[in-house]
Amino acid sequence: MEKISIQKIKWLRGLGLKKNRDESDCFIVEGEKIISEILEINPNRILFILATSELILKYKLENIENVFVGNENDLSKVSTLNTPPKILAVVSKDTSKEINVAEKIIILDGIQDPGNLGTIIRTADWFGLTQIVCSKNTVDCYNQKVIQASMGSIFRMNIIYTELSDFISNLNVPIHGALLDGQRLTEVNPKDIKVLVLGNEGQGISSGIIKKITNPITIQGFGGAESLNVGIATGIFLYHWVR
Amino acid sequence: MEKISIQKIKWLRGLGLKKNRDESDCFIVEGEKIISEILEINPNRILFILATSELILKYKLENIENVFVGNENDLSKVSTLNTPPKILAVVSKDTSKEINVAEKIIILDGIQDPGNLGTIIRTADWFGLTQIVCSKNTVDCYNQKVIQASMGSIFRMNIIYTELSDFISNLNVPIHGALLDGQRLTEVNPKDIKVLVLGNEGQGISSGIIKKITNPITIQGFGGAESLNVGIATGIFLYHWVR
Repeated sequence: MEKISIQKIKWLRGLGLKKNRDESDCFIVEGEKIISEILEINPNRILFILATSELILKYKLENIENVFVGNENDLSKVSTLNTPPKILAVVSKDTSKEINVAEKIIILDGIQDPGNLGTIIRTADWFGLTQIVCSKNTVDCYNQKVIQASMGSIFRMNIIYTELSDFISNLNVPIHGALLDGQRLTEVNPKDIKVLVLGNEGQGISSGIIKKITNPITIQGFGGAESLNVGIATGIFLYHWVR
Repeated sequence: MEKISIQKIKWLRGLGLKKNRDESDCFIVEGEKIISEILEINPNRILFILATSELILKYKLENIENVFVGNENDLSKVSTLNTPPKILAVVSKDTSKEINVAEKIIILDGIQDPGNLGTIIRTADWFGLTQIVCSKNTVDCYNQKVIQASMGSIFRMNIIYTELSDFISNLNVPIHGALLDGQRLTEVNPKDIKVLVLGNEGQGISSGIIKKITNPITIQGFGGAESLNVGIATGIFLYHWVR
C-alpha cells in the first residue's frame, strides 16, 4: 500500500473548486456506503482512491493502481464532512447521455444552496425522474455538499448545465413553472406536465425565463409562511406529477 | 446607547446551549426581518436586544431598557450565521398554549437535524397547521439553526416536547404514521387523518411508537433512492392532508 503524498492531497483539495472539477471532468465522493456501491456497479468510473489501510484490505484494493493509504488526518484534509470518512474517491463525470425531450425534465433556474440541489436530486430519483437541466448559475452538482445530500442518487441522474433560455425555446411542449400566483396544483392534470421549471431560493424564476412559462402552477398555502423551501416545493410537485 | 459588556456577550453565547435556554425560558433570534416583525406584532416577548447603532436608531430603540449597541465583532461572537446580522434579540418562549386534540397535530419522533425541524415548521405553517408535538429526543426547536430555517414560522406554531408514548395513548383517534411499507398516500382519504407521526432521519419511527401506529402510510417511490428526506416527506404528507 502506497502512502498518499502531500502533492496528491493538494490535488484532491483542489477538486473542491469547480474550476478544477471542470478542467479534469471528475469529482470527489466520500464515504464507504456510496463508494462500495460504485465499486460494485460502475468500477471504471473510479479514478483514484484514498482510504485507511483497514478499508483498502476490506475491499481488496491493495494491488490496484491509484489507490493510496492515508490516516485520519490525511482524510480530514480533503473531506468536507464534520466526521471525515475512512474512504474517498475521485470519480469521472458521466457526460455521455443526452437529454431526451420525450421524457419528463426538471429545469432548475439558479438554485444556489448545495443542500437544496442534493435533496432535489434525491427526490427526483425517488419518483423515478432521471433528467435535470440547470441554468449556468445553478450550484455545481459535483460540489461535495450536493453529492452528500443526494445520498447516491446523483449516479442515477442525467444533469446538464446550459443556457436555459435557448433550451426552453427549443422545446415544443407546455412549460410549467412553479410561481406564487399560478393555477392550483390540485387542479392541474399531471399528464399535461412535460417539463417543470423551479427557481432560485430567494428570487424565484428569473425574469427572462418567466416569459417562457406557459403554465404557471402554485402549491396553495393556508397559513402564515411567505413561501415554501424549494426542495419541499419540488417534492410536492413531483408527487403530483408522477402519481 | 449603552455599549454591550463582555459579561452580556458571554450570557448571550450561553443561550446557544439548550440547558441555558430551558432554565431561562428564552432563546435568541437573529436578523432584521424577523425581529422587526416581532417588534410590530409581539414586542412584549422581546427581552433583550443587541444591535448596531444604525439599527437602534432605525427602530427608535435608543431609550428602551435592555437594548445594547455592539459592533460587527460583538454580533459575530453571538451569531451562528456565516454573515452575522446587524441585530439579534432574546425572546421569551410562549408556553401558554395547550395542544388542542380536536385539531390536526404533527408528531415528531426523534428528528435530529435542526434544518429539517426548521423546514418542517415552515412547511406546517404554509399549510395552516399550528400544532407540533415532539418526543423528548427531538432537536430543540429553540436551537438557532431551527429558528433560522423556520423563517419566522416558529412564532406561529405551538410546539411541545413530551413523552410521545403517553401522549399518543391518550388520543382517541386513528394514528397515521409515515412508514416505508404502509398504505399508499394517494389512496388515503385526507379527512381520515387526525394526527401524523414522522420519525428520525436514519432510523424512522422508534419501535415503541411504531406499535401505536394504527394507519401506516407511504409515499410510493418509483426510482432508485432508498428514502425521501423527512422534510420532503412531511411536505408531501401535509399537501395531501390539507387539500
